[in-house]
Amino acid sequence: MKVLGATLTPVAFADPPLLNCMGVHEPSALRSVLEVECEDGVVGLGESYGDASFLEQARRVVERLAGADVFDLPGLRRLVTETLAGAVVTDAHGLIGGYSADKTVASVYSLIEVAFLDAQGHRLGVPVVDLLGGAARDRVDFSAYLFYKYETHQDGSGDRWGRALTPAEIVGQATTMIEEYGFGSIKLKGGVFAPEEECEAIEALAEAFPDLPLRLDPNAAWQVDTSVKVAERLDGVLEYLEDPTPGIEGMAAVARRAPMPLATNMCVVSFADVAPAFRAEAVGVVLSDHHFWGGLRDTLALGTTCGAFGVGLSMHSNSHLGISLAAMVHVAAATRQLTYACDTHWPWKTADVIEPGVLDFEGGAVAVPTGPGLGVSLDRDALARAHERYTTCGQTNRDDVSYMRRWEPGFTPNTARW
Amino acid sequence: MKVLGATLTPVAFADPPLLNCMGVHEPSALRSVLEVECEDGVVGLGESYGDASFLEQARRVVERLAGADVFDLPGLRRLVTETLAGAVVTDAHGLIGGYSADKTVASVYSLIEVAFLDAQGHRLGVPVVDLLGGAARDRVDFSAYLFYKYETHQDGSGDRWGRALTPAEIVGQATTMIEEYGFGSIKLKGGVFAPEEECEAIEALAEAFPDLPLRLDPNAAWQVDTSVKVAERLDGVLEYLEDPTPGIEGMAAVARRAPMPLATNMCVVSFADVAPAFRAEAVGVVLSDHHFWGGLRDTLALGTTCGAFGVGLSMHSNSHLGISLAAMVHVAAATRQLTYACDTHWPWKTADVIEPGVLDFEGGAVAVPTGPGLGVSLDRDALARAHERYTTCGQTNRDDVSYMRRWEPGFTPNTARW
Ligand SMILES: [Mg+2]
Ligand SMILES: [Mg+2]
Repeated sequence: MKVLGATLTPVAFADPPLLNCMGVHEPSALRSVLEVECEDGVVGLGESYGDASFLEQARRVVERLAGADVFDLPGLRRLVTETLAGAVVTDAHGLIGGYSADKTVASVYSLIEVAFLDAQGHRLGVPVVDLLGGAARDRVDFSAYLFYKYETHQDGSGDRWGRALTPAEIVGQATTMIEEYGFGSIKLKGGVFAPEEECEAIEALAEAFPDLPLRLDPNAAWQVDTSVKVAERLDGVLEYLEDPTPGIEGMAAVARRAPMPLATNMCVVSFADVAPAFRAEAVGVVLSDHHFWGGLRDTLALGTTCGAFGVGLSMHSNSHLGISLAAMVHVAAATRQLTYACDTHWPWKTADVIEPGVLDFEGGAVAVPTGPGLGVSLDRDALARAHERYTTCGQTNRDDVSYMRRWEPGFTPNTARW
Repeated sequence: MKVLGATLTPVAFADPPLLNCMGVHEPSALRSVLEVECEDGVVGLGESYGDASFLEQARRVVERLAGADVFDLPGLRRLVTETLAGAVVTDAHGLIGGYSADKTVASVYSLIEVAFLDAQGHRLGVPVVDLLGGAARDRVDFSAYLFYKYETHQDGSGDRWGRALTPAEIVGQATTMIEEYGFGSIKLKGGVFAPEEECEAIEALAEAFPDLPLRLDPNAAWQVDTSVKVAERLDGVLEYLEDPTPGIEGMAAVARRAPMPLATNMCVVSFADVAPAFRAEAVGVVLSDHHFWGGLRDTLALGTTCGAFGVGLSMHSNSHLGISLAAMVHVAAATRQLTYACDTHWPWKTADVIEPGVLDFEGGAVAVPTGPGLGVSLDRDALARAHERYTTCGQTNRDDVSYMRRWEPGFTPNTARW
């Protein structure tokens, strides 16, 4: 089935002032929405980053899609590789390691592959999960993703979540989120306060939710010895400790001394990282993410690779909308090696670009959509609103650091600071 | 799409007296043909081993297929795993390492998965390669698979290939095979004569075909030091040396000293072998085989794993018919990490169970079938003849060793004999 044309629309949606080691989330999160129009009126949807550098590279491929066959994914990979030859996306979205030409190809390919798979599913009348080998599970579990956060943005605009800067406030955030979504595990984004304070928050969560597995992710804000100290203190409390320290070597040094598995979406972020990290036994859990692992099929294959090495599998999340959540659910459902509940920023957003009703959470899980393709439909009015917000919000790149300096002049990212 | 019923038919076809380290091929090669009947008149085809122990276990699952959904491959995996719980197939087909319950599940699952994928393709009107992510190549290269062989079977029945026991006769065999099929690389099955003699045959091939990559596969008939000696002698002559010696440890010892990559279909034959072998850098090339790697999707995923570790990928072959060749071509076409021409026993057979015309060799390659599913059709008369041969040939298991003893009483398999 041939592609007739494709449109990439940058969008923005409200994001609370969530803290991380790079600073604080700005008032808008940026994404891009891809519509691939095909023969017979079929449209395939994709979603990815909305930062300027990504948009620039993605657009170069999107404008060349007409005439492509949505079933020819190797041809798509060649088109992306040839079109972008050597280009490098340099956006700082999501703390997933450095930039490279290969990662750029993987991320642009993924945006389009998802839309092609959606189109395939619509053409064939089957859900994407069936194109990936069928559902190993009907429902995909997600974990509550807690953030330290300010009460309001710099302009004074607040949100329903309020302030979360203390252990008690973090427990409060968790309570609300779990009440509404039913999550069966909890992740705290750390790297914001001194490790001792973050341990206290985790310990408070453990006391409040004794049956729920817990995770802590400081985004490599700690040195090796600090990481080991935290790991020892939280022995029996954390199901895994995520990216305590930078780099494969550092992670391996921590892994040798930590009682729990280490997880990562920072030191194993492409197939090139797999061999050195697995050989060094640096990580016990990889957090997959189809947006940068090169699409749903490669994310699925990552599961096989992890399974072969006895490495667990969870899923990473950036702020995202419903097209991405649908893609995450389909690939997670098809991945039989998935061993942990996935991450999602879902509760933090208040708008979307898809028709509601398909991706509702129940018991912390999302049922795999059963309609053709991804199973979600674009809400054109919502898309127009989100694009309008993009054009007026004044943001074109994610820049948590600069925004943080409006609270703390002189702030620098906390990379291995402690 | 629901399965209505399924039939597993054991078949036999004429096989020449081909020599290997286990002895000599018997007059008939055994296979099994699976027909999965689905709603709407769709039929999916599969093919695998025909030995008694495999048939027994496969039948236990096949008779429970009615009601299964051909798109629910994880459900199929559960059905196979539950039905066979702990059962072990103990056939000696193909020198692929020891027996295990996991390997048994993988092989029975594969037989049925291929038929389910064929049925999916027929239902959706797309070739299997598109269900696997699309064709990374239009044509799949195979290598000429040479064998030392006797002129006739014990009953005096000959074949068009004649005797091949000397370097000159091996060159003659290669000449005929390459003239007819156009193969662009050559493999010699070794482990039959002393290593020096087999080196002479390879050197004769190198002289006769200076532009064609060569391979030698003694099926682990040599000790480590012998393997290294052969490797040094054939430096610059072999593109890879296949399974010179048994076991991951032995292969790693050879690999450290051999100038060319080592390939294997004996020490890395399941995902459980991947981590120890790759960590030990025991092999440079894995010979995939969907019949025992757990179907087309897992074979595809094996490619990703190999690619991540910089390990090359080729494809193993047992004596097989057209349904298996079609499956091999589809998965090889979809595997972008494939780095070598694949093995096939194709030229050695004189009958098949499929309608001819789809899988013709040109320039040593087979074009990926473009029809729905596997793209091949059963020839019911040919199937009946092949089944009749199975019922009358008197063989129910492959037993190269006993048959060899009719030439050489007291023969024992040459496992690491030299
Ligand atoms: Mg993380
Ligand atoms: Mg072999």
